[in-house]
Amino acid sequence: MNFVEIIARRRDGLASMPGDLAAVAQGAADGSVPDYQLAAWLMAAFLNPLSTQETAELTLAMAKSGEVLDRSGLPHPWFDKHSTGGVGDKTTIALLPILVACGMTVVKMSGRGLGMTGGTIDKLEAVPGFRTDLEPEAMLDLARRTGLALSGQTPRLAPADKALYALRDVTGTVANVPLITASILSKKIAAGAECVVLDVKCGSGAFMSDLQAAQTLRQSLVQTGEAAGLRVVARVTDMDQPLGAAVGNALEVKEAIRVVQGAELSPTEARFRDLLLEFARDSLAVAGIDADPAAVIASGRAAEVMRQWFAEQGGDGSVFDSEDWAVAPVQRTMVAERAGTVSQVSAHGVGHAVLNLGAGRRTKEDVIDPRVGAIVHVAVGTRVQAGEPLVTIHAASEADADAAEAMLRQAIQVGEAEVAPRRLFLDES
Amino acid sequence: MNFVEIIARRRDGLASMPGDLAAVAQGAADGSVPDYQLAAWLMAAFLNPLSTQETAELTLAMAKSGEVLDRSGLPHPWFDKHSTGGVGDKTTIALLPILVACGMTVVKMSGRGLGMTGGTIDKLEAVPGFRTDLEPEAMLDLARRTGLALSGQTPRLAPADKALYALRDVTGTVANVPLITASILSKKIAAGAECVVLDVKCGSGAFMSDLQAAQTLRQSLVQTGEAAGLRVVARVTDMDQPLGAAVGNALEVKEAIRVVQGAELSPTEARFRDLLLEFARDSLAVAGIDADPAAVIASGRAAEVMRQWFAEQGGDGSVFDSEDWAVAPVQRTMVAERAGTVSQVSAHGVGHAVLNLGAGRRTKEDVIDPRVGAIVHVAVGTRVQAGEPLVTIHAASEADADAAEAMLRQAIQVGEAEVAPRRLFLDES
Repeated sequence: MNFVEIIARRRDGLASMPGDLAAVAQGAADGSVPDYQLAAWLMAAFLNPLSTQETAELTLAMAKSGEVLDRSGLPHPWFDKHSTGGVGDKTTIALLPILVACGMTVVKMSGRGLGMTGGTIDKLEAVPGFRTDLEPEAMLDLARRTGLALSGQTPRLAPADKALYALRDVTGTVANVPLITASILSKKIAAGAECVVLDVKCGSGAFMSDLQAAQTLRQSLVQTGEAAGLRVVARVTDMDQPLGAAVGNALEVKEAIRVVQGAELSPTEARFRDLLLEFARDSLAVAGIDADPAAVIASGRAAEVMRQWFAEQGGDGSVFDSEDWAVAPVQRTMVAERAGTVSQVSAHGVGHAVLNLGAGRRTKEDVIDPRVGAIVHVAVGTRVQAGEPLVTIHAASEADADAAEAMLRQAIQVGEAEVAPRRLFLDES
Repeated sequence: MNFVEIIARRRDGLASMPGDLAAVAQGAADGSVPDYQLAAWLMAAFLNPLSTQETAELTLAMAKSGEVLDRSGLPHPWFDKHSTGGVGDKTTIALLPILVACGMTVVKMSGRGLGMTGGTIDKLEAVPGFRTDLEPEAMLDLARRTGLALSGQTPRLAPADKALYALRDVTGTVANVPLITASILSKKIAAGAECVVLDVKCGSGAFMSDLQAAQTLRQSLVQTGEAAGLRVVARVTDMDQPLGAAVGNALEVKEAIRVVQGAELSPTEARFRDLLLEFARDSLAVAGIDADPAAVIASGRAAEVMRQWFAEQGGDGSVFDSEDWAVAPVQRTMVAERAGTVSQVSAHGVGHAVLNLGAGRRTKEDVIDPRVGAIVHVAVGTRVQAGEPLVTIHAASEADADAAEAMLRQAIQVGEAEVAPRRLFLDES
């Protein structure tokens, strides 16, 4: 196998030959193809994009580049969920216990955050004692006993994705739909998924702000997933304003708990619950399970599953009884300077303000402060009076709160004109 | 400077910003940009080619990536010559003494061969004792005293080209006109050239067999060279059949000596002399020197310069007095099986037969046998009788000669139809 010929075919826009895409995946996983050749191939694939069939082939090759999780013995169907990442997106944390309470089994790997979008693993690690470093065997054992296990990514599954993603990140080849598709789906297949529900975020707080680009990715995920043998639901959802009220690690876990517990919700929290229930219904539908997610919340069954899940993974159970944990020393409420209608709650602006507070990472080496963040009280279309709270800042210091307030003042705009609330699901007509 | 942004601009076909191309050249030369980023940039530049102005900018940046030869004190103009490589191309060896005999000063770096095309350095090393590893200071000293110095490439000049070429070779990014142009011209500028004469070979024995592609490269070399401040003549010449009679290292040096000495020539040798004199006239014209290259051959002045040159670089002077040096043990003449007109002398076929005899390298580690090769007695259009010699094989063994004969029988075709001789210069109307 001459890898230069594989590069040349991609470069010239020719169809890949059998084995070409397996050579890319295996060469990335085991290091047998040098980075500079993979980088040249990635740029050629960026400029001459893979077809759906080729993307499915690459996806499967990447999925098989390491171990594939063997879930035999666990109840079918095997389900996984993915979001392309957004500001305040705590959906996974609330969705999994709801689905398990409805009778599904979930073994899930999640990622860490970088930049303004947080990662599920970082959020769960805000819970004292919560362990996210489970080996595949421990995940399977836990799922067998309780129906639910979640862990950080292991290099044993889909190592080709880890290698290719690291290269794409430094060679200007991230923003390519087939490569994104293969990256997302290969990890799901390696983790044994049969059904996947995918949330393509679109807006200033997502890596895609163009609706047409997001729709293209959604379509690629569905078509490629089906070509690779998966059952797939993918939705494009709004990330122009943050999802729900809480942005920041402990704050988001608290919001997820409140929603799963069926607590009384603020209007912005209710918007998160709407998205959550829609994804829960999609997930149950794709898995062929007839159950009502709202009912398992109301009955307390979802909260029970969540409590057991946290306990099994070492998390402190008292987080369910009080919100008096991981509390930031400074809390400051920023109010509306005048009456009007909220015209903008920029997810980008809020995300960067919260990143600056210490809730996220600028580089992989940064350490996260789980306590800090913001609670957003308004959404686009909310009518406010002068002096009414817009956002509550949770900061490590007054100086940090000052800086965040300046940024949030730009991010949240109140005007005189009437503004319609933003739609949550952007793939609806 | 963020190199990912430089990659992204090239990827998106945007004009390069000031400093982009210098960053590529300097990053390649000093290793400060990792190979995988350079590889991604090279593929982006392959698919979104550099403009003439950008190519000139990259050329100058590559030329300045290491030392630039300081020829102050040497007679102007500073001249250099380059061929894109072909089978039997010994032009440089004969051209330089002719030009120096006409009053020019030449300080030249040449390359080694890989594949079917030989390198000038390999050919000169067939001469016992000839040293080709001169440092820049020694080259300048020699040129100051004798007007002529030739050496292999030094990593001190244009190190960016060495690094980028090595990467292009393994990333499928060789065959790109702007990158080829920058590679060729940067080394000339680093070696101090003001005037360059370029021979773009076209045909089965060259890396370009498509005339239009060769014309495009010719035009790019002229336009980029002029944009970079050079005086340039570039020609497209035939490499569909070998140049001259001799193919193989010692054999080619012997032919070059014969031509420079004004010896009686065979028809195929005369074809080489025709090309040589045309390039000599081009070189003198671009350098603004009024002299007759045929006259310095006839007067013996060119041969005198050549003899001094070889002696100064350690070469055995007896090579001028007899051809009885570096002689292969087996010599076999292959004759025409029937009368007719030669319809093909494939440079590709002859080149590979001679490569198989041991005259060239398949990989950089191969060792060359200077003795072996072939003397081609016919050209396209030559009328032959049955039994008349077509080619003489010079081999290390009878078995090698058998294998070469089988290949040469395919390479040289005799037919019944009349065939016109091939034109030497393909850029003429």
